[in-house]
Amino acid sequence: MGNIKVETKILTKNEQKAKYLRMLFKENNILVLNFLSSPGSGKTSLLESILPILKEKYNVGVIEGDLATENDAERIRKIGVTCYQINTHGACHLESSGIEKALSSFSLKELNILIIENVGNLVCPAEFDLGEDYKIALISTTEGEDKPIKYPTVIRNSSALIINKTDLIPVLDFDVEKCKAYARGINSSLEIFETSCKTKSGIDNVINWIEEKYYEKTGLCRS
Amino acid sequence: MGNIKVETKILTKNEQKAKYLRMLFKENNILVLNFLSSPGSGKTSLLESILPILKEKYNVGVIEGDLATENDAERIRKIGVTCYQINTHGACHLESSGIEKALSSFSLKELNILIIENVGNLVCPAEFDLGEDYKIALISTTEGEDKPIKYPTVIRNSSALIINKTDLIPVLDFDVEKCKAYARGINSSLEIFETSCKTKSGIDNVINWIEEKYYEKTGLCRS
Repeated sequence: MGNIKVETKILTKNEQKAKYLRMLFKENNILVLNFLSSPGSGKTSLLESILPILKEKYNVGVIEGDLATENDAERIRKIGVTCYQINTHGACHLESSGIEKALSSFSLKELNILIIENVGNLVCPAEFDLGEDYKIALISTTEGEDKPIKYPTVIRNSSALIINKTDLIPVLDFDVEKCKAYARGINSSLEIFETSCKTKSGIDNVINWIEEKYYEKTGLCRS
Repeated sequence: MGNIKVETKILTKNEQKAKYLRMLFKENNILVLNFLSSPGSGKTSLLESILPILKEKYNVGVIEGDLATENDAERIRKIGVTCYQINTHGACHLESSGIEKALSSFSLKELNILIIENVGNLVCPAEFDLGEDYKIALISTTEGEDKPIKYPTVIRNSSALIINKTDLIPVLDFDVEKCKAYARGINSSLEIFETSCKTKSGIDNVINWIEEKYYEKTGLCRS
């Protein structure tokens, strides 16, 4: 008779807390998105483009992660959206304990969508579960089309990739199709969007995807 | 009579190795530069601009740090410069032990300038000493002028800041003077360069600075 090997995954402290948060978000019907990118790829600009539309239909909250400054939180608050700023003071990523602490700024019963803007870093944040439903990676066209193969972890762990700053393509040597092919080579189920926060091109597709995911999670009827 | 407090700094394993490397570089009269930036700010493009000129007068070597791929090393080798590629397989920064290992690819007796291109990450690499003489940070104009205050550690620990992709300024909302003021507010002795690898504007200033630092370190006469 053969042996049966029982494998138990030992959860780290961050994973345990993320698991608890995921339950909490589920109980309260909150869709949670974790945005990841390099510094300056346009995460905050993208939020400035989607939040004015989302907030008309949903109760949206934002958690901003930065090493220093309240700059990004101030940009979000100008839109009229509640925003909690986490300053990591040198740390390179957000952790679930920070998210738990931030939640005291929101009324979970009323919240529909929680957006986390992680620290600008295409490496470390990809490895930390924050209890989110989806990780969304951003790459800007100015960074070059090889970024998906040079930073494969973030592409592998994300559900969607937003190729941002498409308005600059005419003055760059950036091959969109090559970038997409590199990304799909690492993660074939990746949803890919092309956006420009300047011209607003492609922004409606991102909003539509977020709404779809919200109704999918909550089981509510899309009106 | 007062007490005399004796403080001994306990060096980490990385710092110990970096100290040893610094001695080794000094003994062999090698100037060592550690380039840091976000993914896609143009570190490799900058090296492609400066190496063809530097290699005419100096024996130059390059160590490339990336999570994955040999792409950058291949770009450097095309110029005819010896390049060692370190793949960190997910790790977010280079460490001095990796540099020591890479050195077997170079003849230290013959080398004049060693350039390290760190992993694309504006956060973690700033904290790790590789035995270099100078850390040089790059920010691209597409990332926004607030990056120095949002990523203060890298600015504080660097000797020079290169504001790259200046050719794109006409199509961006990027305030160069504001960016410089932010950077100097964190590190008043920072040397700041403005470059475009496309038009080659400002590249000569960077090369001149590197040459100055080489002669300063070696005590040799600049011909």
